[in-house]
Amino acid sequence: MKHLLSAADLSRDEALGILDTAARMHAIQTREVKKLPPLRGRTVVNLFFEDSTRTRSSFEIAGKWLSADVINVSAKGSSVSKGESLRDTALTVAAMGVDALVVRHNASGAVQRIAQWVDCAVVNAGDGTHEHPTQALLDAYTLRGRLGPIEGRHVVIVGDITHSRVARSNVLLLNTLGARVTLVAPPTLMPSGVASWPCTTSWDLDEALCGKAHGDVDAVMMLRVQHERMDGGYFASAHEYAATYGLSPRRLDYLGEGVPVLHPGPMNRGLEISSAAADGAHSVVLDQVQAGVAVRMAVLYTLLAGGEEVAV
Amino acid sequence: MKHLLSAADLSRDEALGILDTAARMHAIQTREVKKLPPLRGRTVVNLFFEDSTRTRSSFEIAGKWLSADVINVSAKGSSVSKGESLRDTALTVAAMGVDALVVRHNASGAVQRIAQWVDCAVVNAGDGTHEHPTQALLDAYTLRGRLGPIEGRHVVIVGDITHSRVARSNVLLLNTLGARVTLVAPPTLMPSGVASWPCTTSWDLDEALCGKAHGDVDAVMMLRVQHERMDGGYFASAHEYAATYGLSPRRLDYLGEGVPVLHPGPMNRGLEISSAAADGAHSVVLDQVQAGVAVRMAVLYTLLAGGEEVAV
Amino acid sequence: MKHLLSAADLSRDEALGILDTAARMHAIQTREVKKLPPLRGRTVVNLFFEDSTRTRSSFEIAGKWLSADVINVSAKGSSVSKGESLRDTALTVAAMGVDALVVRHNASGAVQRIAQWVDCAVVNAGDGTHEHPTQALLDAYTLRGRLGPIEGRHVVIVGDITHSRVARSNVLLLNTLGARVTLVAPPTLMPSGVASWPCTTSWDLDEALCGKAHGDVDAVMMLRVQHERMDGGYFASAHEYAATYGLSPRRLDYLGEGVPVLHPGPMNRGLEISSAAADGAHSVVLDQVQAGVAVRMAVLYTLLAGGEEVAV
Repeated sequence: MKHLLSAADLSRDEALGILDTAARMHAIQTREVKKLPPLRGRTVVNLFFEDSTRTRSSFEIAGKWLSADVINVSAKGSSVSKGESLRDTALTVAAMGVDALVVRHNASGAVQRIAQWVDCAVVNAGDGTHEHPTQALLDAYTLRGRLGPIEGRHVVIVGDITHSRVARSNVLLLNTLGARVTLVAPPTLMPSGVASWPCTTSWDLDEALCGKAHGDVDAVMMLRVQHERMDGGYFASAHEYAATYGLSPRRLDYLGEGVPVLHPGPMNRGLEISSAAADGAHSVVLDQVQAGVAVRMAVLYTLLAGGEEVAV
Repeated sequence: MKHLLSAADLSRDEALGILDTAARMHAIQTREVKKLPPLRGRTVVNLFFEDSTRTRSSFEIAGKWLSADVINVSAKGSSVSKGESLRDTALTVAAMGVDALVVRHNASGAVQRIAQWVDCAVVNAGDGTHEHPTQALLDAYTLRGRLGPIEGRHVVIVGDITHSRVARSNVLLLNTLGARVTLVAPPTLMPSGVASWPCTTSWDLDEALCGKAHGDVDAVMMLRVQHERMDGGYFASAHEYAATYGLSPRRLDYLGEGVPVLHPGPMNRGLEISSAAADGAHSVVLDQVQAGVAVRMAVLYTLLAGGEEVAV
Repeated sequence: MKHLLSAADLSRDEALGILDTAARMHAIQTREVKKLPPLRGRTVVNLFFEDSTRTRSSFEIAGKWLSADVINVSAKGSSVSKGESLRDTALTVAAMGVDALVVRHNASGAVQRIAQWVDCAVVNAGDGTHEHPTQALLDAYTLRGRLGPIEGRHVVIVGDITHSRVARSNVLLLNTLGARVTLVAPPTLMPSGVASWPCTTSWDLDEALCGKAHGDVDAVMMLRVQHERMDGGYFASAHEYAATYGLSPRRLDYLGEGVPVLHPGPMNRGLEISSAAADGAHSVVLDQVQAGVAVRMAVLYTLLAGGEEVAV
């Protein structure tokens, strides 16, 4: 593994290897001294062409706990706004002596292009509506923590599938790990090529959560509705969306005990998820956040410290 | 002490304990190698919902000198702007494995709310017009350095009391430490409930500085006039404010030798403070800045390393 | 050496000393563990009143590789926007206990003023149209790597000389190091006082690169055209500028084998530099970026760790 660009790049063994490494990393989060030495003297650059609090902070903490030097480069007010090409920006940052570039970009495919140009490791921290592989890994980590092995499990992903890099990466990784996935979305937010994806689809959330056709749901992942979609004619109104595709208290009651509810955040409470769902016993939203640091430590460790066994 | 939210939370002994710890921390500021080990492996997040150069930098330096990992999270362009609730933002950041959140917010009371939600230590770095306890501590530290024990001293605080979290925290802490406080402000900038505060008030700066009623002034603290007040009808004009409530060269002459002049910065020279006052022998403005790092080291140390004696 | 404010401050021996130190620093860039101890416990503040991705990141990496604590302070949204004077901002930041201020400012001369006010070391990271001495040092480092000793070499600098701090610092340093410099620009972009500079000038790029008058060119440095110049009447059109002063593939063919092409970045491809020139065998653009980190390490090391020999 040189880069982590897509969840599709990971074989089952590689994915499980990262999750196992993450479990060892996770152990240090409960320690008073959260610091491991393996990336001392390595330089990780968070190159973010799009704002992100949680993903950037999560990678920054992950790098620092592994003793790396972490540099944040925001494309706002940077050379990018001075008309420099993406390739020149990436080559310039990499030429400073960087070991890993963690890249977020608003254009699908931009991170893959950067990986072709630079010599260092590249981690996709979200590119347009394409992929967000560390999100899929932290979701898998969280699921495994609640459910045990993911193989044979059934995960329902609900919301704006078309524009969701989270959904795309999760479908790919969950499939690799042997889970079944059902995507639930209104027709306007279901991608046109979804028939070729390794999953089932539905327009009916009630049917998906408790109908005969799907039944036995092991986990539910609610996706964020992007504000720009609300004015874009993708659905009639926030109220109608919440009624049809929101995880309401009523729908929460459909779920069996111990069925985790995931959300990548930030949540629109009252829209795609009710507060009952976000804060109740099913919710693993904060577990996902905590898993994010452990998984990103594991990814940086795997890419930069390679085959060496980590001592924690 | 789990949090530092308000100057009112501090008992006299706790406040003096922080000042004593700050004095030991201060000693390293004159060393070539400014680095102590006690917070190695601890993570401090500066969660700033409002811009601030000096306070954010001061906490960042304080954390790094104690060997903590310090992460800056600005709410500009963050999930906050995506409609996430304050509670979700705070819980998310804390869930990453943070030991202390240093929070600035433009709403009074927001930091106290956050402290109720998260498990980690929370330091109030300024919330709306409410409180700024580390500013009061650094002011007390500076006063003690110039005057010796604060007990029995008389401090005059001048300017926009209504909107000043600095004034509020100072009145509370100075009272705890046994000082007398006189607040001087135009009626429009004196808070309505001030009668219940443990201090004297006046609308007349000349009277406060040299009249019989107050006399024996041991220190003068000038508050910043916020630009938005100038257009808000709080006073007639900048010129009139400077003439009536500014620390002019003439008023500076009223002060006895060795009476320190404080200002929390940034200063509006020529408005609330003349350059003669800002740069002259009375000014301790830069001592305050230097004390700020030592005091914030002491606060982080006290909250995170608890009862252990610091070796410097 | 207390500060690095202008390339003119450097004697030949001092400049060569920095380049030699940079060469030793450069060696660690190829190591897996890029970390040296000499600035442990020292604090470097990047005080940037103007945006810059590459320069800020380069200094940040340089400081961290030398084990310094590096704090970034952006003047956007800082006390500066609250009306604080430049002097007060600089004194405040310095008072926190800073060992070196790395300052970028949009006003020529601002960094020199700051150096007069503060006690710590000050490095000019670009002030208005005045100077950018570390850029000149990294250019010299790059030239020396390609050409050997700079003495007696002939360097052609092309473009917007009037507004270029890069050109100004390069003319001074190259002259100190014994090189000849020819400046090529349209009359509107050639500074009025250039007759007193220690260099030759020309309005004709073809003549400068292959004419009898100049001939024997050892290196070509293309300057960035600032976007605000394009609308400012400094030249007729981007197309006309590219045709007259751009390093086109045709002009690239004039250059002898091994003649390096430099550009400080970010590049406007197709305007001042063709992609053939930017990406071809002559280009040393990425070498410049890499040299930047080594040179800035050498500058910080020289200013803060003084006469001690660096062990790498």
